[in-house]
Amino acid sequence: MPVQFDVDPTVAGIVQRTEDVVRDVVLPLELRHRGSAHDAPDELRQELQDAARAARVFSPHVSAEFGGLGLDMRDRAPVFEAAGYSLFGPLALNCAAPDEGNMHLLEQVATSQQKERYLRPLAAGETRSCFAMTEPAPGAGSDPSALATTARPTAAGWLLNGRKWFITGANDAGFAIVMARTSGEPGSRGGATMFLVDAGTPGFDRVRDIETLDESMFAGHAELVLDDVEVSHDAVLGEVDKGFEYAQVRLGPARTTHCMRWLGTARRAADIAAERAATRRAFGGRLGDLGMVQQLLADNEIDIEASRALILKTCWDLDTGVPAGRITSITKTFVSEAVNRVVDRALQVCGALGISGDAPLSRLYREVRPFRIYDGPSETHRWSIARRVVRDAQRRLEGPR
Amino acid sequence: MPVQFDVDPTVAGIVQRTEDVVRDVVLPLELRHRGSAHDAPDELRQELQDAARAARVFSPHVSAEFGGLGLDMRDRAPVFEAAGYSLFGPLALNCAAPDEGNMHLLEQVATSQQKERYLRPLAAGETRSCFAMTEPAPGAGSDPSALATTARPTAAGWLLNGRKWFITGANDAGFAIVMARTSGEPGSRGGATMFLVDAGTPGFDRVRDIETLDESMFAGHAELVLDDVEVSHDAVLGEVDKGFEYAQVRLGPARTTHCMRWLGTARRAADIAAERAATRRAFGGRLGDLGMVQQLLADNEIDIEASRALILKTCWDLDTGVPAGRITSITKTFVSEAVNRVVDRALQVCGALGISGDAPLSRLYREVRPFRIYDGPSETHRWSIARRVVRDAQRRLEGPR
Amino acid sequence: MPVQFDVDPTVAGIVQRTEDVVRDVVLPLELRHRGSAHDAPDELRQELQDAARAARVFSPHVSAEFGGLGLDMRDRAPVFEAAGYSLFGPLALNCAAPDEGNMHLLEQVATSQQKERYLRPLAAGETRSCFAMTEPAPGAGSDPSALATTARPTAAGWLLNGRKWFITGANDAGFAIVMARTSGEPGSRGGATMFLVDAGTPGFDRVRDIETLDESMFAGHAELVLDDVEVSHDAVLGEVDKGFEYAQVRLGPARTTHCMRWLGTARRAADIAAERAATRRAFGGRLGDLGMVQQLLADNEIDIEASRALILKTCWDLDTGVPAGRITSITKTFVSEAVNRVVDRALQVCGALGISGDAPLSRLYREVRPFRIYDGPSETHRWSIARRVVRDAQRRLEGPR
Amino acid sequence: MPVQFDVDPTVAGIVQRTEDVVRDVVLPLELRHRGSAHDAPDELRQELQDAARAARVFSPHVSAEFGGLGLDMRDRAPVFEAAGYSLFGPLALNCAAPDEGNMHLLEQVATSQQKERYLRPLAAGETRSCFAMTEPAPGAGSDPSALATTARPTAAGWLLNGRKWFITGANDAGFAIVMARTSGEPGSRGGATMFLVDAGTPGFDRVRDIETLDESMFAGHAELVLDDVEVSHDAVLGEVDKGFEYAQVRLGPARTTHCMRWLGTARRAADIAAERAATRRAFGGRLGDLGMVQQLLADNEIDIEASRALILKTCWDLDTGVPAGRITSITKTFVSEAVNRVVDRALQVCGALGISGDAPLSRLYREVRPFRIYDGPSETHRWSIARRVVRDAQRRLEGPR
Repeated sequence: MPVQFDVDPTVAGIVQRTEDVVRDVVLPLELRHRGSAHDAPDELRQELQDAARAARVFSPHVSAEFGGLGLDMRDRAPVFEAAGYSLFGPLALNCAAPDEGNMHLLEQVATSQQKERYLRPLAAGETRSCFAMTEPAPGAGSDPSALATTARPTAAGWLLNGRKWFITGANDAGFAIVMARTSGEPGSRGGATMFLVDAGTPGFDRVRDIETLDESMFAGHAELVLDDVEVSHDAVLGEVDKGFEYAQVRLGPARTTHCMRWLGTARRAADIAAERAATRRAFGGRLGDLGMVQQLLADNEIDIEASRALILKTCWDLDTGVPAGRITSITKTFVSEAVNRVVDRALQVCGALGISGDAPLSRLYREVRPFRIYDGPSETHRWSIARRVVRDAQRRLEGPR
Repeated sequence: MPVQFDVDPTVAGIVQRTEDVVRDVVLPLELRHRGSAHDAPDELRQELQDAARAARVFSPHVSAEFGGLGLDMRDRAPVFEAAGYSLFGPLALNCAAPDEGNMHLLEQVATSQQKERYLRPLAAGETRSCFAMTEPAPGAGSDPSALATTARPTAAGWLLNGRKWFITGANDAGFAIVMARTSGEPGSRGGATMFLVDAGTPGFDRVRDIETLDESMFAGHAELVLDDVEVSHDAVLGEVDKGFEYAQVRLGPARTTHCMRWLGTARRAADIAAERAATRRAFGGRLGDLGMVQQLLADNEIDIEASRALILKTCWDLDTGVPAGRITSITKTFVSEAVNRVVDRALQVCGALGISGDAPLSRLYREVRPFRIYDGPSETHRWSIARRVVRDAQRRLEGPR
Repeated sequence: MPVQFDVDPTVAGIVQRTEDVVRDVVLPLELRHRGSAHDAPDELRQELQDAARAARVFSPHVSAEFGGLGLDMRDRAPVFEAAGYSLFGPLALNCAAPDEGNMHLLEQVATSQQKERYLRPLAAGETRSCFAMTEPAPGAGSDPSALATTARPTAAGWLLNGRKWFITGANDAGFAIVMARTSGEPGSRGGATMFLVDAGTPGFDRVRDIETLDESMFAGHAELVLDDVEVSHDAVLGEVDKGFEYAQVRLGPARTTHCMRWLGTARRAADIAAERAATRRAFGGRLGDLGMVQQLLADNEIDIEASRALILKTCWDLDTGVPAGRITSITKTFVSEAVNRVVDRALQVCGALGISGDAPLSRLYREVRPFRIYDGPSETHRWSIARRVVRDAQRRLEGPR
Repeated sequence: MPVQFDVDPTVAGIVQRTEDVVRDVVLPLELRHRGSAHDAPDELRQELQDAARAARVFSPHVSAEFGGLGLDMRDRAPVFEAAGYSLFGPLALNCAAPDEGNMHLLEQVATSQQKERYLRPLAAGETRSCFAMTEPAPGAGSDPSALATTARPTAAGWLLNGRKWFITGANDAGFAIVMARTSGEPGSRGGATMFLVDAGTPGFDRVRDIETLDESMFAGHAELVLDDVEVSHDAVLGEVDKGFEYAQVRLGPARTTHCMRWLGTARRAADIAAERAATRRAFGGRLGDLGMVQQLLADNEIDIEASRALILKTCWDLDTGVPAGRITSITKTFVSEAVNRVVDRALQVCGALGISGDAPLSRLYREVRPFRIYDGPSETHRWSIARRVVRDAQRRLEGPR
């Protein structure tokens, strides 16, 4: 069967309904909600999600067993892109980070009991969650092996201690997936475990909300402390000491779905710029008749198409079980940088209007920048890509041939 | 006399005192003042300017006759860069846009009477001013010839009508320099005149403050209307119908001093990144030992040095009266883009910290972006540069030789 | 049927055999043949093509009816990339420009008689051909509507007059497909016709071979004159006055197969650099352990993967008959620039060795540069892409919604 | 004394005469001489240098004592740029690499006797020289400390053994300055010495001329062997074991004069493109009226002006004895990359003509690429720049303040 890019009619329908609900409900709500979404009321989330439910596009990534549409990665791509056209679209579809990645992880790794307790309400939009891995320096940042939060075995389970920051969505989340060291020392790789920790567990506290350049992540980014937090054996997600492996299970798809959503943002920025170029007059013609503006518009299309093609290739690999470390790094690096270029060019095309709050571009400009750092900065991914290149070259040279 | 880059000891002293007051007074005040400076209280300005007066670095660009230090463009360069190290530094030294450019223009063009009335208090920091040229579409934006605001002669003077936006510092300014069409039609070049319009003149109103990506311009960017505003003949700045020429008088130096100030911002961002790279540990070493981080740091130095060298060359041309349209466009384009690159790289080096409000980088990131649009977007400058290139080539080919 | 990227086993076999013959026969011949291929002997071509025939990978793009492997665009992609790994690989497989594009055009447009006379021997490697469209200034270059060569009807057929240059492969070609104006004036679009002109037709002469930066195109790039060249009615390819449409039929796929072949060149350059990085020692480690080198290597992978994904998407559109003007322009622009970046980075990694004739990189560097100009310079493609963007935005804004 | 960029009338006269002789004599000779200059006859050099002597612009960098014009670095800048407008201009003025750098070094370090014997005839154009430092892997390349050529003391002087490559101008040079290790081991820094080795010394042989991407360096780049080459004590240039320090004495200025000369090449490429843009018609107007072409032309001007300003700043530092390691690295990196960008853009503007041998651009394109590798690749300079940045940041943080 040769390469093919067609979209299944069922999926095309979901895409269409997502575009409709985003245009008719989500974008108007986004534009009406001024200021940071970090402390937006839960009613806003409810309203958005009700609209997505009504449009039958809710939880598209979750299996039917848990109430979703059961789309694989390839079919998620156009749906998530359509959702990402609004900053609030992924929240509406219940496929925003970090919940979406957490649902993916729980489907892969959790016990049946854990799925009922944590996945089902999450997939239904009844609660939210967070993923508590990143730590302030000198802990786990770009380099996960620096993990400093510890979990020590007790008679009844485990005792967690540590500090986490940039934990997206932590405010009012129902539970957290906490990554803690169960063997080894910071700087050594092996020995992390994931724990399901309920909100309100004694010693598990939100210290502060971190002010960030981006403002559209619902519930913001918090700094958390774990001060002698006791959890039972049931709180272990998957197996002890396999946390780093599970992180990879989560991160490959999670960074790819990030790309899908942000690609929608890029498409929106490019559309705003194109409409401006088609209508604004300058120097005796339309803005869009000027060659330098055309170059900006064309480069946007090129970046968007290349991003989309890379995402689909990555989805194919993820769906078919091909080892995807290299391609997810390539795609995350390219798309995160391409999305930033697109928004930057769109803003330039719109000039003073782009800078002002009258067009949403200045906001998009802020939102997309962190994506070049979140989920591994470009430098870390490039290092990882290059290491494989050199290793493979070494093998070729040493090979039997 | 050969090329020389030495700095006069007197100027070096001013630079040093500027660095000191910025570090000791201005930066702490900036960091303490959270949120937008668009609606900062005038007390903050007073406090900043008192510190600069005490340090004998106030109004460095103004002639001694009007209470300043009388620095020419070349000597302003290092002083303004030192001031720009803080977002509030130029305000402290009374050399922020738009006042600085207005003082320059008034010194060049105003009558003695107008100087006493407008320049002297402005130079003393007793009032602020604004420059009302830019208009909402389809008026004067990148293309000044689209100027739509009109001034019609009356018995007693002139009657002004129109709408202006992105008028920096308009809120609570003591007066405005208003650009209005006195002959020709929008789209035709000739026929603008500048008017000195006092705040409070009937019909001259601030409609709203425009929300923008940047937030550090004191008093923000306003939208103004002129609805049958009557001014006397004395309100004409310079000669009737020479407004476009005066705009050039103002804009060449003004865009160059912008470069100086923003270069200070770039230097600060680069320093923050360098200090982070020198201290943060990752992957078994310092961040600054990693090659990709080194590349970011090195490219910052290259951009900063090239910017500085270009600025000085431009100052030389402006000080010696060489026609400077080409070089000011070149320098504005290069420096505005270089400054953005530097801040972007610095933010990348700092990772999550760069994105957060805990380092000022996320704020600097927002502040520098509009500079690629304000004072003529890069595309307009490139068009202007290229037009000369083609015209000169044409002449060479047609030339006698 | 969801998106899929799998390669059919039959095609995978062709790819494998192509890689084998390129590595074992073609690359050694390429490295042995120093100097320009523009005047390489036909024996070299024979030797190369015999090897491809023996490997059963000859004329992969031609239908079985005319002796080829009948691959559609999607299946050509990996085969042509494998061939492009050597500068002589496409010649070996008989899928080099311009013959490959001419075969494609003849299959689409020629009469049965014309196919037997021109396509069959071409597909068999018994002759070569050229495509004579481009003219020296002020004729048809980036702007095809400037076409100046004319064809005037006579009793017996047509009389052709004009001048063509950069006609690849013209030297010793058996026939040419000549584009000539049959109505309208230079500068007006409509009215070109394609003619099949045999070598040796009186008045049809090769004036000179044009020296170019690239040197690997077999038989080089010639300048041709048509001085009262008489051809019969049978020489018309397709219909009169439909030449510009046919040019599009040829150019969309032709520029895409160019991308496939050059991607192989990029892959080769990246491999050379990777092997150098894996073995060369500097600064106390391997070159490939240095972060800045890793960045170059990683960016090569990113460019190659994005190119490949874009090519496959474009092939899908071409194979399924989706209008492909936009996507072929996007892909040609991206890939031609990406390939140049890859070779440039590879050369930088290899340092002095890269510059020398001891590695083939300095040659690849020269070969790939013209691809950003041939088949439409990037600027023309960007203009075409942007024009659609603005037109579509216009329609959206005017739309019923 | 404030910053100033004026050019002394005497120097302006030299610049003018250089421009004249380049235009009237040198460029015509260059265009007439097709093919590589690596094996150009010495008569060509004589003819070029006679013209420069007649124009009184010969050896502008050499002190009057040795027959030159005695220009310091600042005054060399515009003269060398004017010379660099033709690939043969520096040779004509006797200020091409490597002779120019060798003269500089000899003036600084040689004994009076050595100056009479080596510098005087070199400054007079009676002989040529080479600088034999670079070695094939794993010897001294980007990393000088890998120096593998050895010099062992003997009763009569020294015995040299080793292999050098990419030794520019070695063919028929009268003497070589050879860098050899006199203490320490490859990989350790300390312990190199420079030797003056006459052509024809037994055991000192040219193995081959290295084919390279560039072809305009007179006498090409050779690979040399030193097989038990005996030299006397008088052959030591400067002091024993100070070779690495002297290399810095030579390299800082040498890489800056490289920048000056290549900047002339960039100016020429930009001029060719501008003239093409002013005359070639496409899409109903001049090429130079198209926005994307204007962008290419404008970016050329920006790169050229920034390069020129950086070069002058660097010259000032070198002339006044400011430690210049950082600024020469910054300038070399920026200018070498800027020059490549300029030539690449110029070629793109000229389209097919740019690729062909009918415009000299395809040749310039080849000539400028190695400059990003010669005299230290960009990566090595960036590493050196960044190391200082991190070190300085470290000191700031540890400082008394």
